[in-house]
Amino acid sequence: MDSGRCELIVVGDEILLGQTLDSNSRYIARRLTDNGMRLHWISVVPDDKDEIKTALDRATGRASAVIITGGLGPTADDFTRPVIAGFFADNLVWRQDLADAILARFEKRAIRPSPGWETMAYFPSRAAAIPNAHGAAPGIHYNYVRDHKGATAVVTPVADSLQSVAIEPVFREAGRQLFALPGVPVEMRGMFEDYILPRLIAARKGVFKSRIFKTVGAGETHLAACIGDPAVLAPATLAFLPSLDQGVTLRLSCSGDDVNLVHPVLEKGSAIIRTAIQSYIYATEEIPLEAVIIDILRYRGWKAAFAESCTGGMISARLTSIPGASDVFERCFVTYSNQAKVELLGVAPDIIENYGAVSEQCARAMAEGACQQAKVDIAISVTGIAGPGGGTVEKPVGLVYIGVADRGGSKVKRFTFAGDRDDNRRRAALAALTMLYRKCINA
Amino acid sequence: MDSGRCELIVVGDEILLGQTLDSNSRYIARRLTDNGMRLHWISVVPDDKDEIKTALDRATGRASAVIITGGLGPTADDFTRPVIAGFFADNLVWRQDLADAILARFEKRAIRPSPGWETMAYFPSRAAAIPNAHGAAPGIHYNYVRDHKGATAVVTPVADSLQSVAIEPVFREAGRQLFALPGVPVEMRGMFEDYILPRLIAARKGVFKSRIFKTVGAGETHLAACIGDPAVLAPATLAFLPSLDQGVTLRLSCSGDDVNLVHPVLEKGSAIIRTAIQSYIYATEEIPLEAVIIDILRYRGWKAAFAESCTGGMISARLTSIPGASDVFERCFVTYSNQAKVELLGVAPDIIENYGAVSEQCARAMAEGACQQAKVDIAISVTGIAGPGGGTVEKPVGLVYIGVADRGGSKVKRFTFAGDRDDNRRRAALAALTMLYRKCINA
Repeated sequence: MDSGRCELIVVGDEILLGQTLDSNSRYIARRLTDNGMRLHWISVVPDDKDEIKTALDRATGRASAVIITGGLGPTADDFTRPVIAGFFADNLVWRQDLADAILARFEKRAIRPSPGWETMAYFPSRAAAIPNAHGAAPGIHYNYVRDHKGATAVVTPVADSLQSVAIEPVFREAGRQLFALPGVPVEMRGMFEDYILPRLIAARKGVFKSRIFKTVGAGETHLAACIGDPAVLAPATLAFLPSLDQGVTLRLSCSGDDVNLVHPVLEKGSAIIRTAIQSYIYATEEIPLEAVIIDILRYRGWKAAFAESCTGGMISARLTSIPGASDVFERCFVTYSNQAKVELLGVAPDIIENYGAVSEQCARAMAEGACQQAKVDIAISVTGIAGPGGGTVEKPVGLVYIGVADRGGSKVKRFTFAGDRDDNRRRAALAALTMLYRKCINA
Repeated sequence: MDSGRCELIVVGDEILLGQTLDSNSRYIARRLTDNGMRLHWISVVPDDKDEIKTALDRATGRASAVIITGGLGPTADDFTRPVIAGFFADNLVWRQDLADAILARFEKRAIRPSPGWETMAYFPSRAAAIPNAHGAAPGIHYNYVRDHKGATAVVTPVADSLQSVAIEPVFREAGRQLFALPGVPVEMRGMFEDYILPRLIAARKGVFKSRIFKTVGAGETHLAACIGDPAVLAPATLAFLPSLDQGVTLRLSCSGDDVNLVHPVLEKGSAIIRTAIQSYIYATEEIPLEAVIIDILRYRGWKAAFAESCTGGMISARLTSIPGASDVFERCFVTYSNQAKVELLGVAPDIIENYGAVSEQCARAMAEGACQQAKVDIAISVTGIAGPGGGTVEKPVGLVYIGVADRGGSKVKRFTFAGDRDDNRRRAALAALTMLYRKCINA
């Protein structure tokens, strides 16, 4: 057994049939990494008793913690509960407290209990129930050991936590943990955060701390070159996490025996990173770029408007995805036709005739027009050729002009992206938000 | 060995660390299902030689076809090529034809070969190379058998297919297949479609055919109730694939020994489904709703405009994600503020004062205003409370009014969604596109 090894088993035909994207795995992987642990293996298995049993046998033989998601519901293809109990040579017994909790939940929501709800109250006799704040099915927590041949499993009782959720370290001497959770993301996440993660953190040897730096305006290669040899950050390590919509996130992590040793390492590393790439950093916490922009606009008391052509409303959709966007966002003109650019933004027809709708001149007129027409403090404009059609030798697919205007004037930048339509549009949206952010922060 | 069992191994720390969402697995799963096969197991394993070897041993022992993605590149953490060769007791040998192909690719793109590119030309001596149209690293194809103890593997040569891509059935007597592909999605997809899928289809026993029905306007439960007992479709089976953005897709599938038996079963099943749910079906092929809408608008010679409030540009962004949207889409007014609704759409200030911006009256005025101001044939409007804030007892979070107007008049529908902000906005966007679709198709 690797004392820090963690494996995940995902039960679900819907994933193996390609009907559902497995977002649970990424969530669990990310949250473990955020907290100085890691996932070593993911097995996605069918809704089939033998396959689940095989996966349990493999995972419990190597890992100190196994998380299994899916198959805990009341329908005929939910096998996880009886298979786990059978695997540990345990029995399912009626738990009145669980039945009461399940029924109370249905009653509170004024809906009839799902057919077969009773099966969820038959619970493994030697496992603890994991409370489920967002659904009916309780999770299952076993504390177990395996003998030297690895052939059999012995279960030791754990304190039941449906009422009490005291957090104890789980990696006891020779004790391993198995946690079973429902596959519904909102239920899984709540139970993972409230029950599993605190136990894994409490059991983690030593301390682990990390800092994040969210950046826009530079690629991974350039950021790495600015920072130089990552050995100067040792014993901390640096990871680069690029995203098409949010720029590159850097995570500086360090583990050690004592927080008093880890802390100065991170302080020094943060100073090195900040000095090297300060102008690209927009946040040092998990917050999207659009939320940072809204905060700055609100602080300045500014209103913003957009004029979008090739991005077709994506920038506006992104900004308004954040609650409170209405404090700072006035309107967006999606001027897809030339006529709309002329009528709504006051772009002179001569500009379109002489330079084309995808031109520096048009981008500038769009940004200035949006600023004036919407009577806002700042506006951005985007016009370009997203593809796959519409490109020429002079104006190829991927050519995008982005303008930004405020009451003091305007400026335009030219970009050439090399992706497909979706890629070019997403990159243009990020570039436009980046220009908006820069203009706001440097005002 | 299960003669139709297919397993997938995904090699990549980036997935186990939660940095990348594993979209390759879903793609492969979906494409197998589309073609009457299925994935039985997915293992996601670290960039580690021993772990990859363990995964290979487990998968090759049970499956007739194993696909492995990732770790074929030239960097120090790419182990898949040597581990596979070692697993089959094979050697890596220099292949001048592969080296030439790799260099030709770099030359064509006028870029310098990646450092370490030579490692990609050292290739297993008893495997065939899978051509890679979108990248440098060739894929690997082994045809192998395992002895009765399952302990050793014997490799039988397969014809090399870098030049010739003749398709032969791969599940020969006692012969199993292993395919290794790069993890870069565009490379993986091309090689899967061009090389692997035709071979798996050719090897599939009997015939498999399916029909799809893409629907909007009804949930899975209602559609199932309309169709009734799925036993009437036997021996065909029916699957429901719901999507928040695209409605519910139904897939009717049937396999058999002879296409002349399968075909009438699907014909009869299609007739039953069409009769039961005709009004909800918008396509019987894999095409997004927005593309269908564009086709109909183009056919009618109509132009469309949108007026969006709570969806903030999402509907416009969706429509313009389709190449050729400019043929039919004029503009979108993202009127987030009340002032914008009044100025751009001509909504009477009295309406907002008396009924509020989230009201049937306002939605109607927005749709009519968009139609008139943009001088288009049809317009839709959306106004609602996406949440989490802004709700009241009379107008709770999730309340959305959607209007549609043409030159003949206008109508408004009221919706109450029960999700979070993102969910409510996406459901509103789908409901608006559904109303637009219905208005166009029934005109």
